[in-house]
Amino acid sequence: MLIPPPGRELVVSADAAIEGVHFRAGDPPDLIARKVLRTNLSDLAAMGADPLGYLLTLAIPPTRDDAFFAAFAAGLAHDQRQFGLTLLGGDTTAGSAQLVVSITILGHLAPGTALRRNGARAGDALWVSGTIGDAALGLRDGAHPHLARRYLLPEPRLGLHLAGIAHAAMDVSDGLVQDAGHLARESGLAVEIAAASVPLSAPARAADALAECLTGGDDYELLLAVPPEHDAALRDEAARTAIPFTRIGRFLPGVGVRVRDARGDEMIFERKGWSHVR
Amino acid sequence: MLIPPPGRELVVSADAAIEGVHFRAGDPPDLIARKVLRTNLSDLAAMGADPLGYLLTLAIPPTRDDAFFAAFAAGLAHDQRQFGLTLLGGDTTAGSAQLVVSITILGHLAPGTALRRNGARAGDALWVSGTIGDAALGLRDGAHPHLARRYLLPEPRLGLHLAGIAHAAMDVSDGLVQDAGHLARESGLAVEIAAASVPLSAPARAADALAECLTGGDDYELLLAVPPEHDAALRDEAARTAIPFTRIGRFLPGVGVRVRDARGDEMIFERKGWSHVR
Repeated sequence: MLIPPPGRELVVSADAAIEGVHFRAGDPPDLIARKVLRTNLSDLAAMGADPLGYLLTLAIPPTRDDAFFAAFAAGLAHDQRQFGLTLLGGDTTAGSAQLVVSITILGHLAPGTALRRNGARAGDALWVSGTIGDAALGLRDGAHPHLARRYLLPEPRLGLHLAGIAHAAMDVSDGLVQDAGHLARESGLAVEIAAASVPLSAPARAADALAECLTGGDDYELLLAVPPEHDAALRDEAARTAIPFTRIGRFLPGVGVRVRDARGDEMIFERKGWSHVR
Repeated sequence: MLIPPPGRELVVSADAAIEGVHFRAGDPPDLIARKVLRTNLSDLAAMGADPLGYLLTLAIPPTRDDAFFAAFAAGLAHDQRQFGLTLLGGDTTAGSAQLVVSITILGHLAPGTALRRNGARAGDALWVSGTIGDAALGLRDGAHPHLARRYLLPEPRLGLHLAGIAHAAMDVSDGLVQDAGHLARESGLAVEIAAASVPLSAPARAADALAECLTGGDDYELLLAVPPEHDAALRDEAARTAIPFTRIGRFLPGVGVRVRDARGDEMIFERKGWSHVR
C-alpha cells in the first residue's frame, strides 16, 4: 500500500532499458540492475523529488540463469538501501529474446515544487552538475576505471532543494547538446553553450575528445535553467550538498541549440546526441 | 502530478507483456494495447481498487511502423476513456527484438479495504466470476467469434465492492486450477474445486474440452474466498454490478489443489496452468 507522506505530493516516472541498447549483455548483473534503477532515480532528481519506491518488470531471455538473477537482485537490494526506497511490485516473464528491464519509480515532494522542463526563461543561465562525457568515453574504452565506472554506475543527483532557484531542470541521458536542446525547445527558447566552460574530469580532458563528451550520453547529470539573481542560492545549495555546478551557457529568444568553442566559433556536430550502445 | 483523491489510499501494480508470449505478433495493434491495459486493470479489480492512471514503457522492434503505433495509441485512448484513467508517463525505446509492453497501473480505494491473496480461511467457499476457458479455446481456434474475442479483449471486473464480503481475491491469468492453488497456498490452505460447477459459456461447453478450460489461462475473471455467511451479500453485489459469480469449491486445512469430477473422482492434469502462447 502506498500513501504519500503527509503533506507531500507524489510524482511518477517510467523508463525501460534494453540489453544491447542501454546496457551491454556482458555487463555485471548487479551493475545492470543498479544502473537502471539509478537512471530512474535521476528522473526523480530532475523533478526535485525524494525517492519512495519502484515497480519492476523483467522480460527474460532463456540465456539468463539463476546466478544472474541472484546478482541482479543483490544489486537492487544494495541501491534500495543506499537510496531509501522499496520495491512495491512487479512481474517477471520468460520468453524474451533480450533482457528488458522496465522500472516505474515513485517519488514525493512538497506540493507545487516539482521542477519541469518547460519553465526556462530568456536570460536564465544554463548550469550543469558534475562532469560531462565520462560515461560516453567509458563505454568506448573501459580501460580507465573512473570512466568505465561512470558508464556502469551513474550517480543520481538527489537531495538538492532547487524549487525557487531553478526555473527548469532535466537530466542528461542522451547527450548534453541534445538534452540542452530539449530543455530550450520545451521552454520555447534557444540555448547557447560555451564548450570551453563544460566541466570535464581529468581523464576526459586527457582523452581530448570534446565533441564526443558534449554529444555522448549516459551522463545522468542535471541541467538547470537558473536566473542570474539566484546564482548565490544555487552556489549555496551546491556547497550544502557537495554537488558541483558549473555555468555553461544561457537561454535566449529563438529556437535551437548553438555550441561555441573557446574562440566563439560555432561548433557543428554530426549528430546532436546518440542512441546508446549500438 | 498524482495525488490520491481525498481519503483514498493508492495501490500500484505492474505487468509486462511480450510479443509471442502474451500476445501474438499478428494480433490487431489496438487490441494488443487494450489487452495489456486490461490485464493491469484486472489486477486493480482483484484488489478492489478503482483505476487512476498508468505508465507505459514500450520496447520496440524495427518491424513495427507508424501505422502500428497509431492503432496501438488509438486502442489505449479508447480504453482510457472507457475505464476513466489517464496516461501518467512512460518511455519508448527502439532496438528490441520483440515488442515488450510494460504497464504500471495506479488505483485508489478506501483505506484498509484492499483485497489480498492471503486472507482465505478454512470453510470459505471459492467463487469465480463470469465463465472460464473461453480465452484458452479462443487462442487455440479463433474461428468462434465469442471465444476469439475473449482471448483478445479481457473484461476487467472493476466496480465491485467486495471489502467485508471476500476474505481474499485474485484474478485468473495463468489458469483456474493454478491460480486457485496460488490463492490457497498464500493463505496456508488447500482448495478443492468441483469441476462440474465451473461456469462455462455455451461455445466452451460445445467444445467439450473441460480440462483445457480449467487449466487454460487469460481468463481475467476474479477468484474470491467468501465465508458462507456472506453468500447473500455477494449475490447482492453480483446483482448490483451484473457480474455473475458462481460457487465452485471450498478452502480447507492442508496444502494443494484438488479438482473433482461430477462423480467425485479426482481429476489429474498434465499441467496445472499454462505459459501463454508458445
